[in-house]
Amino acid sequence: MTEQKPAVVKPWEGRFGRATDDLLEAFSASVHFDWKLYPYEIAGSIAHAKMLGRQGLVTEEEARQMVAGLEQIRAEIEAGAFSWDPALEDVHMNVERALAERIGPAGEKLHTARSRNDQVALDTRMYVRDATGRLIADLIGLREALADRAGEHQDLILPGYTHLQRAQPVLLAHHLLAYNEMFKRDGERLRDLHPRVNVMPLGSAALAGTGLPIDMEFVARELGFDRIVANSMDGVSDRDYILEFVGAAALLMMHLSRLSEDFILWATAEFGFIELPDELSTGSSIMPQKKNPDVPELVRGKTGRIYGHLMGLLTVMKGLPLTYNRDFQEDKEALFDTVETLGQILPLMARFIRRLTFKADRMRAAADDPFVTATDLADHLVKQGVPFRQAHGLVGRLVRTCLDRGLGLVDLEEAEILKLCPGARPGIKKELALGASIQARVSPGGTAPVRVKEALAQTRMELEAEAHRSGLHPGPSGRK
Amino acid sequence: MTEQKPAVVKPWEGRFGRATDDLLEAFSASVHFDWKLYPYEIAGSIAHAKMLGRQGLVTEEEARQMVAGLEQIRAEIEAGAFSWDPALEDVHMNVERALAERIGPAGEKLHTARSRNDQVALDTRMYVRDATGRLIADLIGLREALADRAGEHQDLILPGYTHLQRAQPVLLAHHLLAYNEMFKRDGERLRDLHPRVNVMPLGSAALAGTGLPIDMEFVARELGFDRIVANSMDGVSDRDYILEFVGAAALLMMHLSRLSEDFILWATAEFGFIELPDELSTGSSIMPQKKNPDVPELVRGKTGRIYGHLMGLLTVMKGLPLTYNRDFQEDKEALFDTVETLGQILPLMARFIRRLTFKADRMRAAADDPFVTATDLADHLVKQGVPFRQAHGLVGRLVRTCLDRGLGLVDLEEAEILKLCPGARPGIKKELALGASIQARVSPGGTAPVRVKEALAQTRMELEAEAHRSGLHPGPSGRK
Amino acid sequence: MTEQKPAVVKPWEGRFGRATDDLLEAFSASVHFDWKLYPYEIAGSIAHAKMLGRQGLVTEEEARQMVAGLEQIRAEIEAGAFSWDPALEDVHMNVERALAERIGPAGEKLHTARSRNDQVALDTRMYVRDATGRLIADLIGLREALADRAGEHQDLILPGYTHLQRAQPVLLAHHLLAYNEMFKRDGERLRDLHPRVNVMPLGSAALAGTGLPIDMEFVARELGFDRIVANSMDGVSDRDYILEFVGAAALLMMHLSRLSEDFILWATAEFGFIELPDELSTGSSIMPQKKNPDVPELVRGKTGRIYGHLMGLLTVMKGLPLTYNRDFQEDKEALFDTVETLGQILPLMARFIRRLTFKADRMRAAADDPFVTATDLADHLVKQGVPFRQAHGLVGRLVRTCLDRGLGLVDLEEAEILKLCPGARPGIKKELALGASIQARVSPGGTAPVRVKEALAQTRMELEAEAHRSGLHPGPSGRK
Amino acid sequence: MTEQKPAVVKPWEGRFGRATDDLLEAFSASVHFDWKLYPYEIAGSIAHAKMLGRQGLVTEEEARQMVAGLEQIRAEIEAGAFSWDPALEDVHMNVERALAERIGPAGEKLHTARSRNDQVALDTRMYVRDATGRLIADLIGLREALADRAGEHQDLILPGYTHLQRAQPVLLAHHLLAYNEMFKRDGERLRDLHPRVNVMPLGSAALAGTGLPIDMEFVARELGFDRIVANSMDGVSDRDYILEFVGAAALLMMHLSRLSEDFILWATAEFGFIELPDELSTGSSIMPQKKNPDVPELVRGKTGRIYGHLMGLLTVMKGLPLTYNRDFQEDKEALFDTVETLGQILPLMARFIRRLTFKADRMRAAADDPFVTATDLADHLVKQGVPFRQAHGLVGRLVRTCLDRGLGLVDLEEAEILKLCPGARPGIKKELALGASIQARVSPGGTAPVRVKEALAQTRMELEAEAHRSGLHPGPSGRK
Repeated sequence: MTEQKPAVVKPWEGRFGRATDDLLEAFSASVHFDWKLYPYEIAGSIAHAKMLGRQGLVTEEEARQMVAGLEQIRAEIEAGAFSWDPALEDVHMNVERALAERIGPAGEKLHTARSRNDQVALDTRMYVRDATGRLIADLIGLREALADRAGEHQDLILPGYTHLQRAQPVLLAHHLLAYNEMFKRDGERLRDLHPRVNVMPLGSAALAGTGLPIDMEFVARELGFDRIVANSMDGVSDRDYILEFVGAAALLMMHLSRLSEDFILWATAEFGFIELPDELSTGSSIMPQKKNPDVPELVRGKTGRIYGHLMGLLTVMKGLPLTYNRDFQEDKEALFDTVETLGQILPLMARFIRRLTFKADRMRAAADDPFVTATDLADHLVKQGVPFRQAHGLVGRLVRTCLDRGLGLVDLEEAEILKLCPGARPGIKKELALGASIQARVSPGGTAPVRVKEALAQTRMELEAEAHRSGLHPGPSGRK
Repeated sequence: MTEQKPAVVKPWEGRFGRATDDLLEAFSASVHFDWKLYPYEIAGSIAHAKMLGRQGLVTEEEARQMVAGLEQIRAEIEAGAFSWDPALEDVHMNVERALAERIGPAGEKLHTARSRNDQVALDTRMYVRDATGRLIADLIGLREALADRAGEHQDLILPGYTHLQRAQPVLLAHHLLAYNEMFKRDGERLRDLHPRVNVMPLGSAALAGTGLPIDMEFVARELGFDRIVANSMDGVSDRDYILEFVGAAALLMMHLSRLSEDFILWATAEFGFIELPDELSTGSSIMPQKKNPDVPELVRGKTGRIYGHLMGLLTVMKGLPLTYNRDFQEDKEALFDTVETLGQILPLMARFIRRLTFKADRMRAAADDPFVTATDLADHLVKQGVPFRQAHGLVGRLVRTCLDRGLGLVDLEEAEILKLCPGARPGIKKELALGASIQARVSPGGTAPVRVKEALAQTRMELEAEAHRSGLHPGPSGRK
Repeated sequence: MTEQKPAVVKPWEGRFGRATDDLLEAFSASVHFDWKLYPYEIAGSIAHAKMLGRQGLVTEEEARQMVAGLEQIRAEIEAGAFSWDPALEDVHMNVERALAERIGPAGEKLHTARSRNDQVALDTRMYVRDATGRLIADLIGLREALADRAGEHQDLILPGYTHLQRAQPVLLAHHLLAYNEMFKRDGERLRDLHPRVNVMPLGSAALAGTGLPIDMEFVARELGFDRIVANSMDGVSDRDYILEFVGAAALLMMHLSRLSEDFILWATAEFGFIELPDELSTGSSIMPQKKNPDVPELVRGKTGRIYGHLMGLLTVMKGLPLTYNRDFQEDKEALFDTVETLGQILPLMARFIRRLTFKADRMRAAADDPFVTATDLADHLVKQGVPFRQAHGLVGRLVRTCLDRGLGLVDLEEAEILKLCPGARPGIKKELALGASIQARVSPGGTAPVRVKEALAQTRMELEAEAHRSGLHPGPSGRK
Repeated sequence: MTEQKPAVVKPWEGRFGRATDDLLEAFSASVHFDWKLYPYEIAGSIAHAKMLGRQGLVTEEEARQMVAGLEQIRAEIEAGAFSWDPALEDVHMNVERALAERIGPAGEKLHTARSRNDQVALDTRMYVRDATGRLIADLIGLREALADRAGEHQDLILPGYTHLQRAQPVLLAHHLLAYNEMFKRDGERLRDLHPRVNVMPLGSAALAGTGLPIDMEFVARELGFDRIVANSMDGVSDRDYILEFVGAAALLMMHLSRLSEDFILWATAEFGFIELPDELSTGSSIMPQKKNPDVPELVRGKTGRIYGHLMGLLTVMKGLPLTYNRDFQEDKEALFDTVETLGQILPLMARFIRRLTFKADRMRAAADDPFVTATDLADHLVKQGVPFRQAHGLVGRLVRTCLDRGLGLVDLEEAEILKLCPGARPGIKKELALGASIQARVSPGGTAPVRVKEALAQTRMELEAEAHRSGLHPGPSGRK
């Protein structure tokens, strides 16, 4: 950005008596972040130019020049040879001006029958469409990592927790597959967005549509959109697709924060359920012995960032009258950061999951908690006809007795259990063993090995099917 | 709640050495709000009891007693004759204890093979399912109000605004139908939730499933669920369906806040586009002349409440390890308040829309802005072959000239326009008339009467179709 | 609320042609929550009535009647004998109407020279003032609990954590006193609010002040305010004192959520640093052995609620034009719930802290981590002149060696350390002992017993001083 | 950043078996944003180096070398000649490594007795201290702009609004000074932060303090701190000063959003109270006539950004155990963006206020609303002894009558008023004139010219006094 340049002529300055103030120029320019929309800006402009040519709004030759000029600009940008000028405010005006500089008068026709209001809606819709597609793919990668590790450890037992207290033994695979369910829902949510994102707004013009004979359906087909907006005022003032996307991202981050929390806990000396991979941990500047779980900590921390973006965007939109308001400019940085943050996190978390070491002995030892199968004893009594509420009371008092005597449930002789738990039958001690407890939980979705094996097979099948469904979201060109 | 009652025996107190502290009892009880789940608690318990009977976990007679007892409790609650006891903590324990009191030992078997963890998930899923169904219906009612008013005023012109500055003339019907698009998307989002809400978790038990021979599919069918949870740990720790619901509600409130803002502006003396209905406005305690737009103000204000609930719930869930944590108790009040707030707002807003008076003359007068058809002049030049960017510049300078001379565009003689805008053709003055400008905007989704008429017809068709799709969400019984 | 009552005449209905719609009446009424302001409403009205009498705006006799009538109404409310009518909208109109019913025409003069706009500002300011005073006192109670437990355990060592990895040994007292610092800042923040809360707005009237000869300074003195508002428009539209209060509450909840997290971790079987008090824990409906840390879990969960209130209130206020808007009505429920939630949490958490049992052996055992004093070795080398960065590297490699050999730092013979760490001096092994490490950290604010003892003494002194500063916030009457 | 550089040796890698993974390196590096802390990093390191020298932890010569080297690095950074290496993670390690490269072994001693944990706390505290000072100054500038415009327009009348309905006439100066009150409170809040920000944490080391003989008081004095942290664990885990700062910023943005809303409304064709300055507005890419209020729209929009930062930071901190967690890294970008956003907005808004044109005729015309002085009529009746509630009713019915007859209050003959309002006295019509209404409102803080003049004088005095209090917040060096 040159220092002493002649003042840039704003594309809208005809009606203005004075040049834009420096403070406003610095404050309002968006090209330092919205340049990232250039693939969509250019693809959209090419489709628009072709349409103008087909409709006779420009000559075929002019349309060809525009397309060629836009492709040249794209090449320049990709080669790092394009110079963005903040005085031209945004990606739209930078590209339009560059086109006019490169191809002359035809370039001044590009903005026919469109406005920045519908253009930016077009660009950000394409951006969200692409980002959604990539995140869906990344989510599959993350779920594959979970499934693969679950597959490796189908018989590893650890305590399941409620209230972070040991509750009942579960399989590690079962625990990992619980997260698979969450990330599967996240993927579904992202897919659900698609019909609301993939709607073509160009032609809404400033807000009211245009009187020039455009062909919105053509542009939609060129760019891979399913349909066109039904109302031009909604077309320029709708940001639902961004908010809904960031909302889905916030839920995804919530899940990632929970997974991270589990890993951070498991990596403590006290739990000791995992060994962190050296290459995915960092040390301390002062304490030479430290190896820290930076990956899950940073991921957990970045949950705040995405929640904040969601709140920020909801705030921006609150109470704005129709149609476009300049406040909307605030939508982009939050959106971009959400996409980029998740674009980093998902592959990194998948790699982290693949690289960490599960410490089977520590998990098993923790599962060997003195009371972790107390529910099995109550269930045993139920099977003998004891009403559950009584069974629960009996076992609860037995636990109390054990605690008072400094014993675990497993330390009791069978005879003693039989005496203290009227209704219990011989063989009960065996039912209270870890393995027996796990084996028993065969209810659908339960942690019994047979159920987990089925769940794993089902997951693999779904992942394969979902991977095949790729190509849903075409890139900038809209052509597959 | 009796004052000097004998201490209630907690259903879990066997293992405890001391009674619950008063402060904790007051702090942790939830029955003062979760009693609202009773229709689902009872419907779910009835289905569970039947299943226990079918599976031989209780006798058929016991199952019959449980069902009858539960139905009696429901009748008592509905008659206002049931006394909720906070010492029993929540709706679950209140109902279970009441059952035991009414039918004796069989009642103590109800809790067989289930936990409060999966019960509360069952109840809240049914609650969200019902609430979603009602809100979808309410949204249809709101959209019908918009469509009806749009239908009444198909030729009423007002200024369309960008940046709250008059931009181009639009039809009032077009403006109202823009909101129809928003509320349509809100309905779609609520429908999208359904497959993730309508999943049956009972049988996940505490977290690991159960070893007792239950039949989850039967319970699911009884209660109208599409499928059962795939993973028991996810089954008790998933709250996505609540967060996603509140997220959809936040977007809906955002739309309502925008509509409210438009109405508040239109009701000002300065805009004067609507007259508030007396019966839906209130006055001032001090200023005798005041009539205030309380409905849209309160709606706009309540946007904060729902945003706050969303943020609160996201915060609650952030970083919680698997599986159930007591923090989850915080989900219900926010959910209930969201449902109740929207349950009030949607019908009230529909009524408000139906009752307000559009002031055609004020709208028209505002649309008769001296420069509001400047874009039409630029488009005219484009049709004569002037590149748009040049046309924009020409018209901009013409506007500047008018401003300097204290004139509007419409005050110029056609001859003068032709002189100052090289390329313009005779007849241009007619094209700059309000009606001509509106008529011209025939692009799809545009504001031309022909387009708006089509949009209205389409909207009516969609609304009818959606109204027919009712019954999607069965009530508590799950039976239609 | 009677069913078939004659329609209530609204105090403002003179100018209205139709009665208020039922839906709006239900939606807009606030008396079901703002009745809680009655102590302030009545105290404020009494002061106002006295002022009217002094200024000759009513006769002395009328003023006396008003005061007596208001005191009677207060007595009725406190006796549960007052019937609130939602058709009268809010606490203000309920009280005013009741006064007119009790004392006749003089009651109709109470609203002279005031508006609900300044009344509600007066009431909520007094409410916040009182609440702040109570919370400051509760914070002192919480800090006393921390200090007392710290005092009991001045030599108990546990690991200090960074990244939830054992970092360096610290004293439990030091850890507890870290929270004392946080809660001390919370108290300071609440005190800082006072000058912005304790400003008297009555007399701002609707928004512009009044032409009647009032005496705002008298009312301010009567009610214990420091000063009166400087601008009447700000007087009726300022809600900073609420937002700032809820913002301070959000920070306080954040601290409480961290303390809760520590307790939840410490209560796990894996850490085992505390034993939960039976009377402040609850059990499981299904798992008989469970004792859950409900207190810290609920507190951590309620963090979301308060964050949500803050976000909701910020949203409500965003972008509202001057002056009063009905949206403001949304401020009260969030405020009240914040005050009531903290009013429950602070004493409960103090009691929880007092009742839990610290398990010294488990803490000590955890602190006896094989590498937890590695920094002491690096510091030892620094004292011998080794540049710290080299010392860190040396010790880091030593740790690596130990890990490869399955040893802890403490398992090495001193001779080996001396060999592997050029620069180390005999006696180093002793410096690596837990106690020595703790003893060494005598830097100000460090964990050495001598420092912690000083900190504890300082804390006790401060707590005593703060307890003496009570009386800062007078009650509703403003008289001490 | 060179492509094929030899792997950078991490300062903590002694204990690690494998190099850091690329994904983690990219994800966890913070130097691309935290380099902005360099002035504080270097000032803090210089103070630390001097202290090490004074305490004999390094030689005097080494201390001198360090100081010189650090000053050289600062000069390089300021000259744009310093190359930041993301592989060195953050500003701390970049500077430390650069020092070692420039001055050799002495540089490896800089990290003696400190940790990045206390370093980053030191740096961000100094950053917040400086930012606070600048924002306080900027707030004074903004308030001066308001006061100056208020001073220019001491007799300009416009309608005051409640519910955005015309309520009572007020002076423009009174309206502007209402915002002065808000920004004054914002300044106070920022000042209140100071004692909690200006606390020196260096010496807390990793979390437990240090055993090396440091002098924290010396460092505090060198850097202009009031005191040192009382607890080392709090010292490294406290982020209150950031959250409190961003919370104050959120309130400030809320005020700015309200002021922006007023300006946006006033700039509409319908209100027409202001003319936007050309140089502080922008146009449309499509509509040649548009001049848009971009400044207030962008400011209103950026409210979302800051609210989002606050929510994000609160989320980050929620539920983190003591002490430092890597999640904390997320604090900086939100903080920096808050400071930079406000650093742009405050001067821009001040300039916008100075440059806009108030349109006295439009304001006055709007104030000449047919009913805007209805309260004056009620007050007149009160002065004649009519109870206010009756007076309100009488005037309300009079308004109703006027509305039915299509008249304004001002259109009635005095005789008619006297007839319809029993109790009114001759001369009443004059009291209902705009000027008389304004003149009457002499209550403290009211809009009468005499009160506004006093308020303005008071404001000027306060602004002068506050401007004198500058120098409160020393820069990086801590020296004034």
